[in-house]
Amino acid sequence: MSKIESIRTLRVVRLVLDCEKYMREALELAREAAAQGEVPVGCVVFDESGAVIGRGRNRREELADAGAHAELEAIREACSVRGSWNLSGCGLAVTLEPCPMCAGAVINARLSTVIYGAKEPRSGSVGSVINLFEENYGHRPAVYGGVLSEDCARLLAEFFRGIR
Amino acid sequence: MSKIESIRTLRVVRLVLDCEKYMREALELAREAAAQGEVPVGCVVFDESGAVIGRGRNRREELADAGAHAELEAIREACSVRGSWNLSGCGLAVTLEPCPMCAGAVINARLSTVIYGAKEPRSGSVGSVINLFEENYGHRPAVYGGVLSEDCARLLAEFFRGIR
Repeated sequence: MSKIESIRTLRVVRLVLDCEKYMREALELAREAAAQGEVPVGCVVFDESGAVIGRGRNRREELADAGAHAELEAIREACSVRGSWNLSGCGLAVTLEPCPMCAGAVINARLSTVIYGAKEPRSGSVGSVINLFEENYGHRPAVYGGVLSEDCARLLAEFFRGIR
Repeated sequence: MSKIESIRTLRVVRLVLDCEKYMREALELAREAAAQGEVPVGCVVFDESGAVIGRGRNRREELADAGAHAELEAIREACSVRGSWNLSGCGLAVTLEPCPMCAGAVINARLSTVIYGAKEPRSGSVGSVINLFEENYGHRPAVYGGVLSEDCARLLAEFFRGIR
């Protein structure tokens, strides 16, 4: 392996490890949602230094609010921490492919990176129903999908088996 | 004019008047936003009886929150009033064509009707950039666009002229 190839490989390994680290934090929040009887989806927002600055979990039933998705909650907290609606340079990791509302919030907040776990065939808007980030909104975050997707999907499957 | 034609005409007149009534309330909220130095966008949610059960205005700068759009605020209030994330049967009137986040929130809240004023060429997601309601999300509200659009657009133009 050449030196350049080695550096590239190391960068990819680092990226995969980082993605999985954030996804594990998001999974922890998804488990908290499940414990509260909510569809288990969790999300974290991290800044350029790698610090987690926003956390969210689905609270749709608890708050009786159609907008109470994990991503919006994590984005709101991150905006509050930074004192700005502009999260350029930051990234988001969420256990389930974002719906159009949350993918739209990523665009509005100018988040630079989106990491997601399981696919959502009915409302996923980062490739499943449509890919909002390929439309002409003038903002195209880097996307890493399928991160720890089996863990994310298993949590959802167990939750839905439990309530049936 | 036949009797059936008369009834149809009356229904259309009633619909136009209703759309304009809600839009005037949304315009009032947009003016409040402008007075606070925010991009003037206002929104109301109304229920089956015609009562306004949610009001919102853009607060992105005040709250430093990328998600603080008029529609999300009005939807959150309406959900709170009804005690449910499901606003099926209700409608929303907003002075500016919804962005993907807010159009996505309309889908998540199962709102039956969307009335909007001015077109938004850069982020509008009810026909401008894309039309989210024509995608396969399994929810297609009735849409009435261009209602009092000149008033809505003038308010925005005046605001942007003022801050330049």
